[in-house]
Amino acid sequence: MNVNGRHFRTIWLKESDPRVVQIINQQALPHKFEIIDLSTVEDIRRAIKDMYVRGAGLIGAAAAYGMYLAACEAGKGTFDRDLLAAAGILKNTRPTASNLAWAVDAILAALTGREGTRAQKEEAARREAASIADADAEFCRNIGHHGLAVIEALAEKKKGEAVNILTHCNAGWLAFVDYGTALSPIYAAFDKGIPVHVWVDETRPRNQGASLTAWELAGHGVPLDLIPDNAGGHLMQRGMVDLVITGADRVTRRGDAANKIGTYLKAVTAEENGVPFYIALPSSTFDFTMKDGVREIPIEERDPEEVRYISGKTRSGTIASVLICPEAVPARNWGFDVTPARYITGLITDRGIAEPSEAGIMKLYPEASL
Amino acid sequence: MNVNGRHFRTIWLKESDPRVVQIINQQALPHKFEIIDLSTVEDIRRAIKDMYVRGAGLIGAAAAYGMYLAACEAGKGTFDRDLLAAAGILKNTRPTASNLAWAVDAILAALTGREGTRAQKEEAARREAASIADADAEFCRNIGHHGLAVIEALAEKKKGEAVNILTHCNAGWLAFVDYGTALSPIYAAFDKGIPVHVWVDETRPRNQGASLTAWELAGHGVPLDLIPDNAGGHLMQRGMVDLVITGADRVTRRGDAANKIGTYLKAVTAEENGVPFYIALPSSTFDFTMKDGVREIPIEERDPEEVRYISGKTRSGTIASVLICPEAVPARNWGFDVTPARYITGLITDRGIAEPSEAGIMKLYPEASL
Repeated sequence: MNVNGRHFRTIWLKESDPRVVQIINQQALPHKFEIIDLSTVEDIRRAIKDMYVRGAGLIGAAAAYGMYLAACEAGKGTFDRDLLAAAGILKNTRPTASNLAWAVDAILAALTGREGTRAQKEEAARREAASIADADAEFCRNIGHHGLAVIEALAEKKKGEAVNILTHCNAGWLAFVDYGTALSPIYAAFDKGIPVHVWVDETRPRNQGASLTAWELAGHGVPLDLIPDNAGGHLMQRGMVDLVITGADRVTRRGDAANKIGTYLKAVTAEENGVPFYIALPSSTFDFTMKDGVREIPIEERDPEEVRYISGKTRSGTIASVLICPEAVPARNWGFDVTPARYITGLITDRGIAEPSEAGIMKLYPEASL
Repeated sequence: MNVNGRHFRTIWLKESDPRVVQIINQQALPHKFEIIDLSTVEDIRRAIKDMYVRGAGLIGAAAAYGMYLAACEAGKGTFDRDLLAAAGILKNTRPTASNLAWAVDAILAALTGREGTRAQKEEAARREAASIADADAEFCRNIGHHGLAVIEALAEKKKGEAVNILTHCNAGWLAFVDYGTALSPIYAAFDKGIPVHVWVDETRPRNQGASLTAWELAGHGVPLDLIPDNAGGHLMQRGMVDLVITGADRVTRRGDAANKIGTYLKAVTAEENGVPFYIALPSSTFDFTMKDGVREIPIEERDPEEVRYISGKTRSGTIASVLICPEAVPARNWGFDVTPARYITGLITDRGIAEPSEAGIMKLYPEASL
């Protein structure tokens, strides 16, 4: 999407040197817009590990481009062996990211044990990585297309007033190659001239809403207000939210959705107030092996220091972490919660909008029927 | 309550010099425990204005002691006039704090136009201020006594396991003279040897949970964990919350309760999960002139900079404010939300526990019947 009028993806090849991958350093956002050159597998490894890139779709694309750089680096006689080693290194950066392993394996399968010159192999790796990145963007664009209908229907009711949409965490283009999931329908509506306004949940403890969602919406020109995570209930009660859309980390075959901690509080309160609550996700986020999300989805507990310290920019312009509680006070930090399907109005996927039930999901994903 | 083994109130007269009022500087908490001497009406005015003291009960007591200092300062022939001037100054510090005006007027009525020597008048002012502070502590102690029964009943079911209590914002002894409201039953249970554990909501944007509630519970020795405001729903869904207790800023004659923003999200989700949700309040927090809280209670909108900046202690030990979003992004900041009575299990008052309905409240407050 746009950053102050110019279109960007989150990852691309450098125009002046296609053996260099370029990314936006998301660790520096929102205080600094920094583009970084990645020239080696080691550069890509560090960028994933240190979360310069994050989000399921973007991590997959970054790993794919990492395999392209591996093909450029590989020794003459040791091409397959070197590629396999790079695959191991890249997969190890974030072992639980399923998109990452999938992307690495896809390129490995396309290249190893094949005939062809070195130049042909490099070109095949580049094409494969680009196609993985393009596919990610295309999935997200389709989510936007299907979700647009929901916003258009609400806009009709509001007769020219802005449709107020609340979102939690960052499920925007920064988490993918372009468009995003939860934000993709919002960009589609905005680009079509439909008046929208976004309530951006700060999303404690890591503040992805304040730092990433606010940054990307503002960069594209979408009207927004940042709010504390505590405010959404009040806004729903007062009729100031027409729609909630969030992303998801994993959705079961019944439609239970794991997403950033705090999503569940908004979903329950949205239902209580008759506010439609949608989850937007690419097909790859479904985990068809699971049914009951509350029982089956493991919820990661993260470092409590993420709760006790907050990072930001001081008035003198430096980045600092500040402690917000007494030194000796313990904290707990669950990364996700599970919203049972009964609170979800619909699942906006790249194939269309599914009713959040096993029957509804199987209509769009017949291949997953038991 | 205790601060590392020693009992404190939030306001008292200095032992070595009873013409000096001492307070805990709450602006310095949780990073520094600082006791400040206040010797003049001007000192008290600044302490209230700059929020060295905060919370309905404590502000009232501070204003009462301010009037005592005014009596000490007043000119020989201008006693009544000087007292009246001090009353005006003190009432102006926080014009919406009804306890403050009430406390000032109580002392004014006890002193002006009366006979007696100068020493007798000073002594009368001291006695009146002390009695206002004592009454505040006593109201809170009674809330603890009535709320204790709720915790005891849960402790019986848990057979020795800790009763897990979630609270939002700070309604502890720091907001009153002693004990507090929401935390008073918890202190009562803890002091009686009942195993309790508190989930302390951080309470963005001003972080009163992280800075004040965590500090005071830890100081008294009560087991706690700090959590982001986003975590409570997950904990309720997993059976990890036995009880929610919060304070209130205003409660209508029907039992609708205005409290810190975010309370409503917890109340709705507690009801959905069958978790009892109590509001603790002194009688003075009822506003019997109002019925429908959502329609009638005005919700203050505060400075958006409170959302955009967070203050805390840097690793080098200094206090700093950090910006958590892009420079140009707007924010909104509602101070309170309203929890309708239907989500509230009971109102723990100094007179007993009221059912949250007009009939239930009038049983305890027959004088407010129409």
